[in-house]
Amino acid sequence: MRIELFFTPNEVKEEELKNQTVLVIDVLRASTTIAYALHNGCRGIIPANSIDGAIELSKKIGRDSALLCGEREGVKIEGFDLGNSPFEYEAEKIKDKTLIFATTNGSKAIVKGSSANSLTVGSFVNFQSTFNYLSSSPNDLAIICSGKLDQFAIEDAVCGGLYVSSFLSEFGSAGKEGEYELNDAAFAALKLYEVYKNDLLEMLKKSSHGRYLIELGFEKDLYLCSELDSLKVIPVLDQGKLVSYNGS
Amino acid sequence: MRIELFFTPNEVKEEELKNQTVLVIDVLRASTTIAYALHNGCRGIIPANSIDGAIELSKKIGRDSALLCGEREGVKIEGFDLGNSPFEYEAEKIKDKTLIFATTNGSKAIVKGSSANSLTVGSFVNFQSTFNYLSSSPNDLAIICSGKLDQFAIEDAVCGGLYVSSFLSEFGSAGKEGEYELNDAAFAALKLYEVYKNDLLEMLKKSSHGRYLIELGFEKDLYLCSELDSLKVIPVLDQGKLVSYNGS
Repeated sequence: MRIELFFTPNEVKEEELKNQTVLVIDVLRASTTIAYALHNGCRGIIPANSIDGAIELSKKIGRDSALLCGEREGVKIEGFDLGNSPFEYEAEKIKDKTLIFATTNGSKAIVKGSSANSLTVGSFVNFQSTFNYLSSSPNDLAIICSGKLDQFAIEDAVCGGLYVSSFLSEFGSAGKEGEYELNDAAFAALKLYEVYKNDLLEMLKKSSHGRYLIELGFEKDLYLCSELDSLKVIPVLDQGKLVSYNGS
Repeated sequence: MRIELFFTPNEVKEEELKNQTVLVIDVLRASTTIAYALHNGCRGIIPANSIDGAIELSKKIGRDSALLCGEREGVKIEGFDLGNSPFEYEAEKIKDKTLIFATTNGSKAIVKGSSANSLTVGSFVNFQSTFNYLSSSPNDLAIICSGKLDQFAIEDAVCGGLYVSSFLSEFGSAGKEGEYELNDAAFAALKLYEVYKNDLLEMLKKSSHGRYLIELGFEKDLYLCSELDSLKVIPVLDQGKLVSYNGS
């Protein structure tokens, strides 16, 4: 089985995803927020590539059943209902709503990966459940790190490395790394995970995007985003909408 | 001082390079080959973005004083004089010649970085001399890893990490990392260098591009590319041509 990891969506060749399972990661904060939104009962999440595209879609669906969500430069988009902090996605606000989700990096990565055979969204908070889901797939795996403005982001690499590490230790026999064929980035992510695995929060605080979020007043988001396996939700893309996988 | 590292040329925003010093790295094999070519007495090396551009330029300069050099998929381009193995660049072939150099990744990275205040090309073989050159610059540093086909390549990341590590240990006081502001990729490269520093050759052999070159019969190139400080040459870009820096 082949595990390819991409540090930025730009590195992904969409035509190669067709027969693969895709995992999209945007630890700060889109994939964490998506996990919380589905956990708290939203009907589904439609990733949008642009602000205009999101607004247009919300008119089609109707603003009574759809919420406009997303950020630019970490801050809620003007006129939108919700930003990109997982704390905003409380059950009373989002239950049974469809969320149209336009974040700078995560939404774009999901759209980029949508030609895949199947797509899920992972983070530290829903690692184990999404890992179990991915483990049951016979396809090769492509891990797309969202990065930040098409540049490398350490938190996504480390989270990607957690998945790679778990595949190797769960299924790779000792000394038989060859059961998994890793690309260079998957291998590097694995090494970066090994460096940071004992202090994920500290890594988030040191990361470029983490420092920026702290400046904006979102430090508590970093604590929440670093909590391993606090949720069990598995977001899967179904006809352009992320929904909670129900096991069938 | 700021040190930014980019794992692929695609991540570089050219307009931000104007006041920076750029270091381009393509360990396998363009930057190693460039070091050998200058060491062995070529007049200069003109990086070309495409095969057609290289051929056109060779006609302008005249085929008696210019050599066409470069590869696609690791193999010498048809009709070209030399490929991309450093072993081909012997003094008797290249002395006083101008080399037009069209490699898949390295040449493109150099062209991408050419808007910088100054540009040098580094590798393991000419690390110390290029590091000394970079250290004397008051500008911020941008390290552009060539990668492979716009994707991450571990050997370039590790070599970039060697430069980052040396800046920190040479000039950063203990506990005062703050003297250098690193982007996430520079920090990750540093960590990857620390993982692999005791066996660069093994890292090259395990890398995706290294394995490919071994398949093509270029295993001895990997040995040569892993030899730290075997040369003292400092390639600098001067009016579109890489020449040997003479200290003035």
